[in-house]
Amino acid sequence: MMEIITSIGEMKTWSRRIRDEGKVIGLTPTMGCLHEGHLSLIKASITECDSTVVSIFVNPTQFGPDEDLGSYPRTLEADKEVLRSADIDVLFLPTKEDLYPDGFQSFVEVDNKTKYLCGKSRPGFFRGVTTIVLKLFNIVNPDTAFFGEKDRQQLEVIRTMVRDLNLNVTVTGKPIVREDDGLAMSSRNRYLSEEGRLSARSLSQALETAQTSIEQGERSTETIRNKIRQMIEKRNGTEVDYISVCDPEDFSEHKEIRSKTLIALAVRVGNARLIDNRIVERT
Amino acid sequence: MMEIITSIGEMKTWSRRIRDEGKVIGLTPTMGCLHEGHLSLIKASITECDSTVVSIFVNPTQFGPDEDLGSYPRTLEADKEVLRSADIDVLFLPTKEDLYPDGFQSFVEVDNKTKYLCGKSRPGFFRGVTTIVLKLFNIVNPDTAFFGEKDRQQLEVIRTMVRDLNLNVTVTGKPIVREDDGLAMSSRNRYLSEEGRLSARSLSQALETAQTSIEQGERSTETIRNKIRQMIEKRNGTEVDYISVCDPEDFSEHKEIRSKTLIALAVRVGNARLIDNRIVERT
Repeated sequence: MMEIITSIGEMKTWSRRIRDEGKVIGLTPTMGCLHEGHLSLIKASITECDSTVVSIFVNPTQFGPDEDLGSYPRTLEADKEVLRSADIDVLFLPTKEDLYPDGFQSFVEVDNKTKYLCGKSRPGFFRGVTTIVLKLFNIVNPDTAFFGEKDRQQLEVIRTMVRDLNLNVTVTGKPIVREDDGLAMSSRNRYLSEEGRLSARSLSQALETAQTSIEQGERSTETIRNKIRQMIEKRNGTEVDYISVCDPEDFSEHKEIRSKTLIALAVRVGNARLIDNRIVERT
Repeated sequence: MMEIITSIGEMKTWSRRIRDEGKVIGLTPTMGCLHEGHLSLIKASITECDSTVVSIFVNPTQFGPDEDLGSYPRTLEADKEVLRSADIDVLFLPTKEDLYPDGFQSFVEVDNKTKYLCGKSRPGFFRGVTTIVLKLFNIVNPDTAFFGEKDRQQLEVIRTMVRDLNLNVTVTGKPIVREDDGLAMSSRNRYLSEEGRLSARSLSQALETAQTSIEQGERSTETIRNKIRQMIEKRNGTEVDYISVCDPEDFSEHKEIRSKTLIALAVRVGNARLIDNRIVERT
């Protein structure tokens, strides 16, 4: 039976009790509007842990002033059904007022790794992410936390925070889940018009083409970036935010393809800002 | 028998074991060069908790480039003797390399409360303090942590971090311990020359005079600041860094004395930067 907890104090009490019973707690932090990508994390948590907590909280501190905080899709009743069917133990639904009370002023920042990619185009985004994730870790006290590789920079930034601040949690990343035509699952796919939905296929297609190029011997990161840009920009309604061919851990860019390369991109398609990525190993 | 632990992993293991036994852990984080002020915290920990940990680590991230990191007094052998006699359970002596490995880049910052007093004159100081304190909390996992009220802003900043980030630790502040002539105990008192030691008495004397003024009806914070400044500047070798008559919680300054007032000051006396403070309740 899924329990719904809204109070921070009650969540802490639950967690202490479960830990005292010697059980392993898994946490999947989400902003709701759940899709198959979230579900793959939740299923992993259920398989790997004794008790599974899923949090739903649309975190205001990770949205910029011109971003989609107000319109971010909220589908709470459907989410509850999905989580009940998945048979999780606790849905944690904290309020904004409890998480960010008057006078709130403490933040966690990861420095270097947030200077690239989404950190560059969304100032303050990662500060909001690391702060809320640290708070959720302290409230739920999980042994393991699950994050999707679609947000690969986020995953890497959280790993860095956990290592640097000596947090007592294991961070587990899980592969991107895709629609049949390759589009990475995302709550923001709901923003896509019918035409945008078709244009959005170009992200995963361009990543696949780039991988093939590298496998066939292409070594210039500029050539690869240009090829991706062309494939995406020829589709209607697309606007590239960034295309990066970079180191998968520190996100620095190089002129030549190295042994292991991250290709990451962010593209506006209509109202939706979509991201996707792929790690390519040089053969 | 006092155990000395240098490894982060061993410290975590020890803490987990003690907690599993249902015992309450007290932590007093220090930079060593222990004096009666530290000892009062350690005694409180021994009284209030089942197991007492004291950490000694001169934390580089809280020193500015022109500050006294290199010359900060280190008296490890004497400290060990003091702690053995006090009968603590664990002396935690982590290394710089383990706490700040290559690629370290995650920091905690408290925003508003660090804009005043020492935060204003020592940029980056509180970022270093909150970061190391959070790390020590995650490693030692104490139920209660003890801090001295001499560093009142630090105490308040740490309380704010603990509340904002939902940390599972109680922060306990303990009163300033003073020399017979009123000088607040501090490791940095060692920097004082014989003459400087005499001049340094002016800090606590000025605070006492200010308290008397307020009790006698003085309501202008400017008058009080000026009186303190005069008393200190007439002594040899003193240079005022700041004198603040402010709110004890958010450190904002007002023109009129309110019901509860913090008087805080920082003064250079020769090579030593000394701080002292007093809370005055309007009668």
